Amino acid sequence: MSGFDLRPIGPDDLETICRHRHEMFKVSGRTDEMVAPMTEHFRPWLKPLLDDGRYFGWFALSAGRAIGGVGMMVIDWPPHPSHPTQSSRGYVLNMYVEPELRRMGLGRQLMELCSQEAERRGLDYLVLHATKQGRGLYEKLGWAATSEMALTIAK
Amino acid sequence: MSGFDLRPIGPDDLETICRHRHEMFKVSGRTDEMVAPMTEHFRPWLKPLLDDGRYFGWFALSAGRAIGGVGMMVIDWPPHPSHPTQSSRGYVLNMYVEPELRRMGLGRQLMELCSQEAERRGLDYLVLHATKQGRGLYEKLGWAATSEMALTIAK
Repeated sequence: MSGFDLRPIGPDDLETICRHRHEMFKVSGRTDEMVAPMTEHFRPWLKPLLDDGRYFGWFALSAGRAIGGVGMMVIDWPPHPSHPTQSSRGYVLNMYVEPELRRMGLGRQLMELCSQEAERRGLDYLVLHATKQGRGLYEKLGWAATSEMALTIAK
Repeated sequence: MSGFDLRPIGPDDLETICRHRHEMFKVSGRTDEMVAPMTEHFRPWLKPLLDDGRYFGWFALSAGRAIGGVGMMVIDWPPHPSHPTQSSRGYVLNMYVEPELRRMGLGRQLMELCSQEAERRGLDYLVLHATKQGRGLYEKLGWAATSEMALTIAK
């Protein structure tokens, strides 16, 4: 496989996770300036969850530097035909690999850690939101599109 | 419009909401027996949220009987480009109208109550999961498919 190490994330990784999420959303013509308000609000939202482990995940390392990563949360959710006896589902977010290191198997390794952790925690069902670039990998790993729809409320 | 009254739901409506959710999921060949475990787990999950108003919504009434309804929750969510300064989104669920009373505008009226309530609460962004039957109505009201994907964890 690749020559990258993987390690669990922890409270000291706040800034790097924010950077990965920021870069992840700089697609479809979004600039730093456009993404910045989200990042500024994401940081204080994440901190308590990262501190107490409600947000968890892994980094991929190259020469000690986190060049990619993924996060997970267990979210409260009404029991549903896809998880009829559980009132939670796993949410996978902030999947990111630096552009020049893509297509080397890192995304797959990170996603497999998520599935293993879900199994370890006894979760029946995971969701994520895919970028256009990520969709193919997720499909290969067995993920399928849901029927989710969204509406932005006009101001 | 239609001759149906609408009223907000409350704690006494627990069983009717469970019945609507149960019937809503009896599609695609799912029988009562297949949906029952979900309903049995949904009821105790819903009760505290309905009691304290974290789950709210409306019923459509015909001769005093709830022949349809919809529910909403405000869910915690990481700030996202679709709601960069908010760490929450609205979730619309349990949209149901009895089959013989569909295509009379009730679904639209219920969904408009959701949008108005979202506006009143200052929510930027709503999500739902559509049944095949519901998708057309939601699209007419401005909703669009998201990139959500899901994975069932094998046991």
